[in-house]
Amino acid sequence: MISVKEAEKILSKFHFNKTEYVKIEDAYGRVLAEDIVSDIDIPRFDRSDIDGYAVAEILDEYVLIEQVFAGDDKDLEINGNECVLVATGGKVPKNTKYVIPIENTVRVGNKAVVISFDRIEEISRKGCDIKKGERILKKGTLINERNIGVLAGLGIEEVKVYKIPKIGIISTGNELFKMTKDINSKTISSIVKKAGCKPIFLGIVKDDFNEIKEKIIEASEKCDVVVTSGGVSVGEKDFLPKVVKDLGEILFHKVKMRPGMPMLFGKIDKKPIFCMPGNVVSCLVCSYVFLLPFLMKMTHKPYRRKIIKAKLSEKIISEPDFLYLRPVKLKNGIAYPTFKGSNILTSILDADGLAIIKENELEKNEGDIIDIWMLD
Amino acid sequence: MISVKEAEKILSKFHFNKTEYVKIEDAYGRVLAEDIVSDIDIPRFDRSDIDGYAVAEILDEYVLIEQVFAGDDKDLEINGNECVLVATGGKVPKNTKYVIPIENTVRVGNKAVVISFDRIEEISRKGCDIKKGERILKKGTLINERNIGVLAGLGIEEVKVYKIPKIGIISTGNELFKMTKDINSKTISSIVKKAGCKPIFLGIVKDDFNEIKEKIIEASEKCDVVVTSGGVSVGEKDFLPKVVKDLGEILFHKVKMRPGMPMLFGKIDKKPIFCMPGNVVSCLVCSYVFLLPFLMKMTHKPYRRKIIKAKLSEKIISEPDFLYLRPVKLKNGIAYPTFKGSNILTSILDADGLAIIKENELEKNEGDIIDIWMLD
Repeated sequence: MISVKEAEKILSKFHFNKTEYVKIEDAYGRVLAEDIVSDIDIPRFDRSDIDGYAVAEILDEYVLIEQVFAGDDKDLEINGNECVLVATGGKVPKNTKYVIPIENTVRVGNKAVVISFDRIEEISRKGCDIKKGERILKKGTLINERNIGVLAGLGIEEVKVYKIPKIGIISTGNELFKMTKDINSKTISSIVKKAGCKPIFLGIVKDDFNEIKEKIIEASEKCDVVVTSGGVSVGEKDFLPKVVKDLGEILFHKVKMRPGMPMLFGKIDKKPIFCMPGNVVSCLVCSYVFLLPFLMKMTHKPYRRKIIKAKLSEKIISEPDFLYLRPVKLKNGIAYPTFKGSNILTSILDADGLAIIKENELEKNEGDIIDIWMLD
Repeated sequence: MISVKEAEKILSKFHFNKTEYVKIEDAYGRVLAEDIVSDIDIPRFDRSDIDGYAVAEILDEYVLIEQVFAGDDKDLEINGNECVLVATGGKVPKNTKYVIPIENTVRVGNKAVVISFDRIEEISRKGCDIKKGERILKKGTLINERNIGVLAGLGIEEVKVYKIPKIGIISTGNELFKMTKDINSKTISSIVKKAGCKPIFLGIVKDDFNEIKEKIIEASEKCDVVVTSGGVSVGEKDFLPKVVKDLGEILFHKVKMRPGMPMLFGKIDKKPIFCMPGNVVSCLVCSYVFLLPFLMKMTHKPYRRKIIKAKLSEKIISEPDFLYLRPVKLKNGIAYPTFKGSNILTSILDADGLAIIKENELEKNEGDIIDIWMLD
């Protein structure tokens, strides 16, 4: 039996770096697997920021020689008293120094007469926003609503991102073919979705060595990670340790943590396999402690536990060397334990967090300020 | 021109309450549109929490009369020195008072001899977890990884949830048919995804009254909300105010806010339409301020702005009556403005938040502690 810290160290050795190209329309929320370097200047040309007359020098009136709309790509030039009417976003002619707002002028035939110089707008020079060759976004950047516009602005249609890991989920237990409902596959699927990964439910299997083995082989072929629940203890019907040993390697079995002690983690070829306890609360707590951060790392997205302080409403006793994680409901800064047993659904139904009783803290009393790991 | 507060008041009058049934496998992250009341007891029967012998009284040895596996639905009864071997999760016979762990016994023929009474487990009584008729989850509850197990445990296959709003997105502007890239539709789509809604991009339209009108009619028929960008000012090519007026009603046009002042909001039949300014920074800021909270409310999910304090790195000057929201990058508690202009992509590329300069604060100086609205 190993400590939670040792288990986390073993988990930290796994990495997932598969990549794929996605269209920019589908890139929101994905993580870049490449640097984005601009191959153009933005603006691509000297650009007017208003509707106005582009001029080369300050004069009282100008001769209008041309008109430019936004998006036009005309190579014009002005000299002396020549001017060009340029729309907002339009390319200004060569030699443009200022743009005089249209509302500060009157038009007389082909002449623009300036009636006020109160606002003379400068122009956005070519490359003032982004320079050709500049690294705009680093590999590892999460694509969000603020940086996706730059990708669009650069004319990029596809980006290289990390693949979304596929997580194969298997429920085991003869009782699931009788009156007992399969709960854990829904809980695990939800944790997988929370991490931004794709759950693939492969079904329920009986407590049978060969059936479990075949299903795990199928899962490890189809998916990047396999997660099972049930059959992980040491009874005669607990086939998971035997199957993982047969197909690959057990990396740890049993963790000094409650709930969640019976958990097993191993690998089959290079694919990680999490075997969660069958009790619903244990399964969920193991998913929070081990599976969620593991999957977040696979997605290359940032993940940090959110820990707050709260006052404990009642005594909790733990045992030596074990990390205790007790579901609590928070109300006005007070943490009310909701744990009633590892197989009691209402132990977690309304929980907001997990009260952390560290190894060898042994007891926390009513009124003690303790750390709460917030679950949302 | 109205204040941001007045605009928010107008927006707050819209509600979205369409519902649909989804399978529990697809229910994670959705919001319940009905109360969930249990029509069963959980456990459905008195349940053993360990592998052991169910007994009616404390004796030294018992006669084994039957065996029960988890999920079995046998109606057994024990009396006197009779015992039944019950697996974890199994239904215990009538009259069971205790379950003696199997490891504390030896089996001799059809007899179970108790070798230690150090652990006598009680059983989980019928309904101790959830009682028939109990309201388990309230209408409006977000389905998460902690409460989805209860739905599964109750045997519920489908739940009534609020529909995911469909948001029609239209970009307008002649320049988008020339050299200028369409950026705003990607930004708006990302905000829509951030809110958990479904973006439907309907394409780019020229600055033409009839083309814009037709596209908006199409969008308002297909979608629950319409969002356009561009053409919202008062120039001759700014057709959005005219089209909204023609098809429905303008509820506000121009807000005392920078960037984002030209924004328009209206309704066509009962469908809301947001007309965002074409400048990329203005479009994004309007999306954060008005669209995101509006959509979050439509999804019935909780939404609260995350405001932190930070020290300003340089002076910001605002104008009377206007709310200024300036993109900033945070580093070691210091907020560095990144705003370089409403049409400069790098104004927002690396921003973490928006510095809030309230109406009539007029200036904030270097070193001032100001409120920052965090964007993630």
